[in-house]
Amino acid sequence: MSIEKYPSKLLETAVNEFARLPGIGRKSALRMVLHLLRQNKEAVTSFGQSLIQLRNDIKHCRICHNISDTDICQICVNPARNASVICVVENIRDVMLVENTHQYNGLYHVLGGIISPMDGIGPGELEIGSLIDRAGNADVVEIILALPTTMEGDTTNFYIFRKLKDKPVRVTTLSRGVAVGDDLEYTDEITLGRSLVNRVLYESSVGK
Amino acid sequence: MSIEKYPSKLLETAVNEFARLPGIGRKSALRMVLHLLRQNKEAVTSFGQSLIQLRNDIKHCRICHNISDTDICQICVNPARNASVICVVENIRDVMLVENTHQYNGLYHVLGGIISPMDGIGPGELEIGSLIDRAGNADVVEIILALPTTMEGDTTNFYIFRKLKDKPVRVTTLSRGVAVGDDLEYTDEITLGRSLVNRVLYESSVGK
Repeated sequence: MSIEKYPSKLLETAVNEFARLPGIGRKSALRMVLHLLRQNKEAVTSFGQSLIQLRNDIKHCRICHNISDTDICQICVNPARNASVICVVENIRDVMLVENTHQYNGLYHVLGGIISPMDGIGPGELEIGSLIDRAGNADVVEIILALPTTMEGDTTNFYIFRKLKDKPVRVTTLSRGVAVGDDLEYTDEITLGRSLVNRVLYESSVGK
Repeated sequence: MSIEKYPSKLLETAVNEFARLPGIGRKSALRMVLHLLRQNKEAVTSFGQSLIQLRNDIKHCRICHNISDTDICQICVNPARNASVICVVENIRDVMLVENTHQYNGLYHVLGGIISPMDGIGPGELEIGSLIDRAGNADVVEIILALPTTMEGDTTNFYIFRKLKDKPVRVTTLSRGVAVGDDLEYTDEITLGRSLVNRVLYESSVGK
Protein backbone atom coordinates (compact mmCIF):
# COMPACT_ATOMS: atom_id res chain seq x y z
CA MET A 1 0.00 0.00 0.00
CA SER A 2 1.50 3.31 -0.99
CA ILE A 3 1.29 6.29 1.30
CA GLU A 4 0.25 9.36 -0.67
CA LYS A 5 -0.77 11.98 1.85
CA TYR A 6 1.21 13.05 4.85
CA PRO A 7 -0.44 15.00 7.65
CA SER A 8 2.68 17.12 8.07
CA LYS A 9 5.31 18.63 5.80
CA LEU A 10 8.00 17.95 8.42
CA LEU A 11 7.01 14.29 8.45
CA GLU A 12 7.00 14.07 4.67
CA THR A 13 10.45 15.68 4.41
CA ALA A 14 11.93 13.23 6.92
CA VAL A 15 10.32 10.26 5.15
CA ASN A 16 11.72 11.47 1.81
CA GLU A 17 15.21 11.72 3.31
CA PHE A 18 15.12 8.17 4.69
CA ALA A 19 13.63 6.80 1.47
CA ARG A 20 16.73 8.02 -0.39
CA LEU A 21 18.93 5.62 1.59
CA PRO A 22 19.91 2.37 -0.16
CA GLY A 23 17.43 -0.46 0.37
CA ILE A 24 14.82 1.70 2.15
CA GLY A 25 11.33 2.03 0.65
CA ARG A 26 8.76 4.65 1.61
CA LYS A 27 7.02 2.28 4.00
CA SER A 28 10.18 1.44 5.95
CA ALA A 29 11.09 5.13 5.89
CA LEU A 30 7.74 6.02 7.47
CA ARG A 31 8.21 3.35 10.13
CA MET A 32 11.63 4.81 11.00
CA VAL A 33 10.28 8.35 11.20
CA LEU A 34 7.38 7.28 13.43
CA HIS A 35 9.91 5.45 15.61
CA LEU A 36 11.95 8.66 15.94
CA LEU A 37 8.82 10.62 16.85
CA ARG A 38 8.39 8.31 19.84
CA GLN A 39 11.95 8.98 21.07
CA ASN A 40 12.80 11.94 23.26
CA LYS A 41 14.00 15.20 21.72
CA GLU A 42 17.59 14.82 22.96
CA ALA A 43 17.98 11.39 21.34
CA VAL A 44 16.68 12.56 17.97
CA THR A 45 18.75 15.74 18.08
CA SER A 46 21.90 13.74 18.73
CA PHE A 47 20.99 11.40 15.85
CA GLY A 48 20.62 14.34 13.48
CA GLN A 49 23.82 15.96 14.72
CA SER A 50 25.79 12.73 14.42
CA LEU A 51 24.98 12.68 10.69
CA ILE A 52 25.92 16.32 10.19
CA GLN A 53 29.19 15.88 12.12
CA LEU A 54 29.98 12.66 10.31
CA ARG A 55 29.87 14.27 6.90
CA ASN A 56 31.47 17.57 7.88
CA ASP A 57 34.20 16.47 10.28
CA ILE A 58 35.36 13.12 8.98
CA LYS A 59 38.83 12.99 7.45
CA HIS A 60 40.57 10.67 5.03
CA CYS A 61 44.01 9.39 6.01
CA ARG A 62 46.65 11.26 3.95
CA ILE A 63 48.57 8.02 3.43
CA CYS A 64 46.05 5.22 2.82
CA HIS A 65 42.82 7.25 2.24
CA ASN A 66 40.89 5.21 4.79
CA ILE A 67 38.43 7.32 6.77
CA SER A 68 39.81 8.57 10.03
CA ASP A 69 39.23 11.12 12.78
CA THR A 70 42.85 12.23 12.42
CA ASP A 71 45.09 13.30 9.51
CA ILE A 72 46.83 9.93 9.54
CA CYS A 73 44.73 6.92 10.44
CA GLN A 74 45.21 4.61 13.43
CA ILE A 75 46.48 1.82 11.19
CA CYS A 76 49.13 3.83 9.32
CA VAL A 77 50.35 5.40 12.56
CA ASN A 78 50.65 2.09 14.42
CA PRO A 79 54.33 0.99 14.68
CA ALA A 80 53.23 -2.61 15.34
CA ARG A 81 51.83 -2.93 11.81
CA ASN A 82 54.03 -4.39 9.10
CA ALA A 83 54.82 -1.45 6.80
CA SER A 84 56.33 -3.67 4.11
CA VAL A 85 52.94 -4.94 2.90
CA ILE A 86 50.12 -2.85 1.47
CA CYS A 87 46.67 -4.33 0.91
CA VAL A 88 44.78 -2.50 -1.85
CA VAL A 89 40.99 -2.36 -1.37
CA GLU A 90 38.08 -0.73 -3.13
CA ASN A 91 36.62 1.15 -0.16
CA ILE A 92 36.69 1.70 3.58
CA ARG A 93 34.16 -1.05 4.21
CA ASP A 94 36.65 -3.56 2.80
CA VAL A 95 39.32 -2.35 5.26
CA MET A 96 36.93 -3.24 8.08
CA LEU A 97 36.17 -6.62 6.53
CA VAL A 98 39.85 -7.53 6.18
CA GLU A 99 40.64 -6.26 9.70
CA ASN A 100 37.85 -8.51 10.95
CA THR A 101 39.65 -11.63 9.69
CA HIS A 102 42.52 -10.98 12.18
CA GLN A 103 44.80 -12.51 9.52
CA TYR A 104 46.48 -9.35 8.32
CA ASN A 105 48.95 -7.05 10.03
CA GLY A 106 50.11 -4.86 7.15
CA LEU A 107 48.89 -1.49 5.87
CA TYR A 108 46.09 -0.59 3.46
CA HIS A 109 45.47 1.54 0.43
CA VAL A 110 41.86 2.55 -0.27
CA LEU A 111 41.31 3.25 -3.97
CA GLY A 112 37.90 4.86 -3.45
CA GLY A 113 36.32 2.68 -6.14
CA ILE A 114 37.38 0.48 -9.04
CA ILE A 115 37.80 1.17 -12.73
CA SER A 116 34.34 1.03 -14.31
CA PRO A 117 33.96 2.60 -17.75
CA MET A 118 30.18 1.95 -17.58
CA ASP A 119 29.94 4.27 -14.56
CA GLY A 120 32.46 6.73 -15.99
CA ILE A 121 35.10 5.81 -13.39
CA GLY A 122 38.59 5.79 -14.88
CA PRO A 123 41.97 5.39 -13.18
CA GLY A 124 42.16 9.18 -12.76
CA GLU A 125 39.19 9.15 -10.37
CA LEU A 126 40.90 6.62 -8.09
CA GLU A 127 43.82 6.80 -5.65
CA ILE A 128 46.10 4.81 -7.98
CA GLY A 129 48.82 7.47 -8.42
CA SER A 130 49.40 7.67 -4.68
CA LEU A 131 49.57 3.85 -4.52
CA ILE A 132 52.31 3.77 -7.15
CA ASP A 133 54.20 6.43 -5.17
CA ARG A 134 53.90 4.38 -1.98
CA ALA A 135 55.07 1.26 -3.79
CA GLY A 136 58.29 3.14 -4.67
CA ASN A 137 59.14 3.42 -0.98
CA ALA A 138 62.15 1.22 -0.10
CA ASP A 139 60.26 -0.38 2.86
CA VAL A 140 57.50 -1.81 0.71
CA VAL A 141 58.08 -5.36 -0.57
CA GLU A 142 54.56 -6.54 -1.36
CA ILE A 143 51.30 -5.14 -2.71
CA ILE A 144 48.22 -7.34 -2.13
CA LEU A 145 45.38 -6.64 -4.54
CA ALA A 146 42.17 -7.36 -2.59
CA LEU A 147 39.62 -6.05 -5.09
CA PRO A 148 36.32 -7.75 -5.95
CA THR A 149 36.60 -10.74 -8.30
CA THR A 150 34.44 -9.04 -10.92
CA MET A 151 35.33 -7.80 -14.39
CA GLU A 152 35.88 -4.30 -13.01
CA GLY A 153 38.02 -5.69 -10.21
CA ASP A 154 40.09 -7.71 -12.68
CA THR A 155 40.52 -4.66 -14.92
CA THR A 156 41.69 -2.57 -11.98
CA ASN A 157 44.05 -5.34 -10.82
CA PHE A 158 45.61 -5.54 -14.25
CA TYR A 159 45.93 -1.76 -14.58
CA ILE A 160 47.71 -1.51 -11.21
CA PHE A 161 49.87 -4.56 -11.96
CA ARG A 162 51.18 -2.93 -15.13
CA LYS A 163 51.82 0.39 -13.38
CA LEU A 164 53.84 -1.47 -10.72
CA LYS A 165 55.97 -3.38 -13.22
CA ASP A 166 59.07 -1.20 -12.74
CA LYS A 167 58.81 -1.14 -8.95
CA PRO A 168 60.78 -3.68 -6.90
CA VAL A 169 57.63 -5.08 -5.27
CA ARG A 170 55.86 -8.40 -5.36
CA VAL A 171 52.24 -8.05 -6.53
CA THR A 172 49.86 -10.65 -5.11
CA THR A 173 46.09 -11.14 -5.14
CA LEU A 174 43.72 -12.85 -2.73
CA SER A 175 43.46 -16.59 -3.36
CA ARG A 176 40.24 -17.52 -5.09
CA GLY A 177 38.56 -18.77 -1.97
CA VAL A 178 36.38 -15.74 -2.61
CA ALA A 179 33.64 -16.91 -4.99
CA VAL A 180 34.05 -15.36 -8.44
CA GLY A 181 31.52 -12.59 -9.00
CA ASP A 182 30.96 -12.07 -5.26
CA ASP A 183 31.56 -8.96 -3.19
CA LEU A 184 33.95 -9.24 -0.23
CA GLU A 185 31.03 -8.20 1.95
CA TYR A 186 29.24 -11.52 1.44
CA THR A 187 32.25 -13.72 2.20
CA ASP A 188 32.53 -15.37 5.60
CA GLU A 189 35.50 -14.54 7.83
CA ILE A 190 37.12 -17.98 7.47
CA THR A 191 37.12 -17.87 3.67
CA LEU A 192 38.32 -14.28 3.51
CA GLY A 193 41.04 -15.02 6.09
CA ARG A 194 42.15 -18.14 4.15
CA SER A 195 42.30 -16.20 0.90
CA LEU A 196 44.65 -13.69 2.56
CA VAL A 197 46.95 -16.41 3.94
CA ASN A 198 46.95 -18.25 0.59
CA ARG A 199 47.43 -15.18 -1.57
CA VAL A 200 49.10 -15.95 -4.89
CA LEU A 201 51.36 -14.09 -7.29
CA TYR A 202 49.28 -11.99 -9.67
CA GLU A 203 50.91 -13.59 -12.71
CA SER A 204 49.86 -17.08 -11.65
CA SER A 205 46.31 -15.95 -10.78
CA VAL A 206 45.56 -14.91 -14.36
CA GLY A 207 46.95 -18.23 -15.71
CA LYS A 208 50.45 -17.46 -17.08
CA MET B 1 29.96 -11.14 9.24
CA SER B 2 29.95 -8.78 12.18
CA ILE B 3 31.85 -5.53 12.04
CA GLU B 4 33.77 -5.02 15.26
CA LYS B 5 36.24 -2.24 14.62
CA TYR B 6 35.48 1.13 13.09
CA PRO B 7 38.26 3.33 11.73
CA SER B 8 36.52 6.43 13.08
CA LYS B 9 34.51 7.34 16.17
CA LEU B 10 32.24 9.58 14.07
CA LEU B 11 31.50 6.66 11.78
CA GLU B 12 30.81 4.34 14.70
CA THR B 13 28.46 6.84 16.35
CA ALA B 14 26.45 7.26 13.15
CA VAL B 15 26.28 3.48 12.62
CA ASN B 16 25.05 3.02 16.20
CA GLU B 17 22.33 5.62 15.67
CA PHE B 18 21.05 3.94 12.50
CA ALA B 19 21.25 0.48 14.07
CA ARG B 20 18.77 1.62 16.75
CA LEU B 21 16.06 2.10 14.09
CA PRO B 22 13.50 -0.69 13.78
CA GLY B 23 14.50 -3.44 11.35
CA ILE B 24 18.02 -2.09 10.77
CA GLY B 25 21.02 -4.30 11.63
CA ARG B 26 24.61 -3.10 11.99
CA LYS B 27 25.46 -4.11 8.44
CA SER B 28 22.59 -2.17 6.87
CA ALA B 29 23.41 0.74 9.18
CA LEU B 30 27.01 0.76 7.93
CA ARG B 31 25.82 0.68 4.31
CA MET B 32 23.59 3.71 4.96
CA VAL B 33 26.38 5.63 6.64
CA LEU B 34 28.82 4.90 3.80
CA HIS B 35 26.11 6.03 1.39
CA LEU B 36 25.79 9.32 3.26
CA LEU B 37 29.57 9.78 3.20
CA ARG B 38 29.39 9.73 -0.59
CA GLN B 39 26.74 12.49 -0.67
CA ASN B 40 27.63 16.16 -0.60
CA LYS B 41 27.78 18.05 2.70
CA GLU B 42 24.63 20.09 2.03
CA ALA B 43 22.51 16.99 1.41
CA VAL B 44 23.68 15.27 4.59
CA THR B 45 23.29 18.44 6.66
CA SER B 46 19.71 18.85 5.46
CA PHE B 47 19.02 15.18 6.29
CA GLY B 48 20.31 15.67 9.82
CA GLN B 49 18.40 18.92 10.25
CA SER B 50 15.16 17.41 8.94
CA LEU B 51 15.30 14.87 11.78
CA ILE B 52 16.03 17.49 14.42
CA GLN B 53 13.24 19.76 13.12
CA LEU B 54 10.83 16.85 12.85
CA ARG B 55 11.13 15.96 16.50
CA ASN B 56 11.34 19.50 17.85
CA ASP B 57 8.80 21.35 15.71
CA ILE B 58 6.08 18.81 15.04
CA LYS B 59 2.76 19.39 16.75
CA HIS B 60 -0.16 17.17 17.66
CA CYS B 61 -3.62 18.39 16.70
CA ARG B 62 -5.40 19.65 19.82
CA ILE B 63 -8.64 18.00 18.71
CA CYS B 64 -7.75 14.60 17.18
CA HIS B 65 -4.09 14.22 18.30
CA ASN B 66 -2.93 13.43 14.77
CA ILE B 67 0.47 14.94 13.99
CA SER B 68 0.30 18.28 12.31
CA ASP B 69 2.37 21.35 11.46
CA THR B 70 -0.38 23.53 12.98
CA ASP B 71 -2.29 23.57 16.29
CA ILE B 72 -5.34 22.05 14.62
CA CYS B 73 -4.72 19.59 11.81
CA GLN B 74 -5.73 19.94 8.18
CA ILE B 75 -8.46 17.30 8.58
CA CYS B 76 -10.14 18.78 11.66
CA VAL B 77 -10.04 22.28 10.15
CA ASN B 78 -11.53 21.20 6.80
CA PRO B 79 -15.22 22.26 6.55
CA ALA B 80 -15.79 19.67 3.78
CA ARG B 81 -15.22 16.79 6.21
CA ASN B 82 -18.20 15.20 7.91
CA ALA B 83 -17.91 16.24 11.56
CA SER B 84 -20.62 13.84 12.70
CA VAL B 85 -18.40 10.75 12.39
CA ILE B 86 -15.16 10.10 14.30
CA CYS B 87 -12.88 7.23 13.34
CA VAL B 88 -10.81 6.04 16.30
CA VAL B 89 -7.33 4.73 15.40
CA GLU B 90 -4.30 3.52 17.28
CA ASN B 91 -1.72 5.88 15.74
CA ILE B 92 -0.98 8.46 13.06
CA ARG B 93 0.08 5.82 10.56
CA ASP B 94 -3.45 4.39 10.67
CA VAL B 95 -4.89 7.82 9.81
CA MET B 96 -2.77 7.79 6.64
CA LEU B 97 -3.86 4.23 5.85
CA VAL B 98 -7.57 5.06 6.19
CA GLU B 99 -7.16 8.30 4.21
CA ASN B 100 -5.54 6.26 1.47
CA THR B 101 -8.71 4.19 0.96
CA HIS B 102 -10.59 7.35 -0.20
CA GLN B 103 -13.67 5.79 1.43
CA TYR B 104 -13.89 8.02 4.47
CA ASN B 105 -14.77 11.67 4.83
CA GLY B 106 -15.23 12.01 8.58
CA LEU B 107 -12.84 13.03 11.33
CA TYR B 108 -10.33 11.00 13.36
CA HIS B 109 -9.26 10.44 16.90
CA VAL B 110 -5.74 9.12 17.47
CA LEU B 111 -5.46 7.21 20.76
CA GLY B 112 -1.66 7.08 20.70
CA GLY B 113 -1.65 3.34 21.39
CA ILE B 114 -3.99 0.63 22.61
CA ILE B 115 -4.61 -0.85 26.04
CA SER B 116 -1.87 -3.39 26.67
CA PRO B 117 -1.32 -4.47 30.28
CA MET B 118 1.73 -6.51 29.17
CA ASP B 119 3.42 -3.29 28.03
CA GLY B 120 2.11 -1.31 30.99
CA ILE B 121 -0.24 0.74 28.81
CA GLY B 122 -3.54 1.42 30.55
CA PRO B 123 -6.45 3.66 29.49
CA GLY B 124 -4.85 6.59 31.34
CA GLU B 125 -1.88 6.61 28.94
CA LEU B 126 -4.19 6.96 25.93
CA GLU B 127 -6.33 9.79 24.54
CA ILE B 128 -9.57 8.10 25.64
CA GLY B 129 -10.83 10.87 27.95
CA SER B 130 -10.70 13.43 25.15
CA LEU B 131 -12.55 10.99 22.86
CA ILE B 132 -15.38 10.63 25.38
CA ASP B 133 -15.55 14.44 25.60
CA ARG B 134 -15.75 14.75 21.81
CA ALA B 135 -18.46 12.07 21.67
CA GLY B 136 -20.57 14.27 23.98
CA ASN B 137 -20.64 16.99 21.33
CA ALA B 138 -24.14 17.32 19.82
CA ASP B 139 -22.79 17.12 16.24
CA VAL B 140 -21.33 13.65 16.69
CA VAL B 141 -23.62 10.75 15.77
CA GLU B 142 -21.18 7.89 15.15
CA ILE B 143 -17.88 6.62 16.53
CA ILE B 144 -16.07 4.11 14.30
CA LEU B 145 -13.59 1.91 16.19
CA ALA B 146 -10.79 1.12 13.70
CA LEU B 147 -8.34 -0.55 16.05
CA PRO B 148 -6.32 -3.69 15.25
CA THR B 149 -8.24 -6.96 15.46
CA THR B 150 -5.98 -8.28 18.21
CA MET B 151 -6.72 -9.03 21.83
CA GLU B 152 -5.40 -5.60 22.83
CA GLY B 153 -7.51 -3.98 20.12
CA ASP B 154 -10.60 -5.87 21.27
CA THR B 155 -9.94 -4.89 24.88
CA THR B 156 -9.60 -1.23 23.91
CA ASN B 157 -12.76 -1.41 21.78
CA PHE B 158 -14.72 -2.85 24.66
CA TYR B 159 -13.34 -0.28 27.14
CA ILE B 160 -14.31 2.62 24.86
CA PHE B 161 -17.69 1.05 24.06
CA ARG B 162 -18.58 0.92 27.75
CA LYS B 163 -17.38 4.49 28.35
CA LEU B 164 -19.60 5.65 25.47
CA LYS B 165 -22.69 3.84 26.73
CA ASP B 166 -24.37 7.00 28.09
CA LYS B 167 -23.56 9.12 25.03
CA PRO B 168 -26.14 9.45 22.26
CA VAL B 169 -23.78 8.03 19.61
CA ARG B 170 -23.76 4.90 17.51
CA VAL B 171 -20.56 2.86 18.06
CA THR B 172 -19.43 0.83 15.04
CA THR B 173 -16.32 -1.20 14.19
CA LEU B 174 -14.65 -2.04 10.90
CA SER B 175 -16.20 -5.08 9.24
CA ARG B 176 -14.02 -8.15 9.60
CA GLY B 177 -12.65 -7.95 6.09
CA VAL B 178 -9.45 -7.24 8.00
CA ALA B 179 -7.94 -10.63 8.80
CA VAL B 180 -8.12 -11.37 12.53
CA GLY B 181 -4.71 -10.90 14.16
CA ASP B 182 -3.45 -8.64 11.36
CA ASP B 183 -2.27 -5.06 11.56
CA LEU B 184 -4.05 -2.46 9.41
CA GLU B 185 -0.69 -1.79 7.79
CA TYR B 186 -0.69 -5.15 5.99
CA THR B 187 -4.23 -4.84 4.62
CA ASP B 188 -4.71 -3.85 0.98
CA GLU B 189 -6.65 -0.66 0.14
CA ILE B 190 -9.66 -2.50 -1.29
CA THR B 191 -10.15 -4.64 1.81
CA LEU B 192 -9.62 -1.76 4.21
CA GLY B 193 -11.98 0.45 2.15
CA ARG B 194 -14.62 -2.31 2.10
CA SER B 195 -14.37 -2.80 5.84
CA LEU B 196 -15.06 0.91 6.33
CA VAL B 197 -18.11 0.86 4.03
CA ASN B 198 -19.42 -2.36 5.65
CA ARG B 199 -18.79 -1.29 9.22
CA VAL B 200 -21.12 -2.97 11.69
CA LEU B 201 -22.63 -2.10 15.06
CA TYR B 202 -20.21 -2.96 17.84
CA GLU B 203 -22.81 -5.07 19.65
CA SER B 204 -23.29 -7.34 16.64
CA SER B 205 -19.51 -7.63 16.01
CA VAL B 206 -18.90 -9.29 19.38
CA GLY B 207 -21.80 -11.76 18.80
CA LYS B 208 -24.71 -10.45 20.93
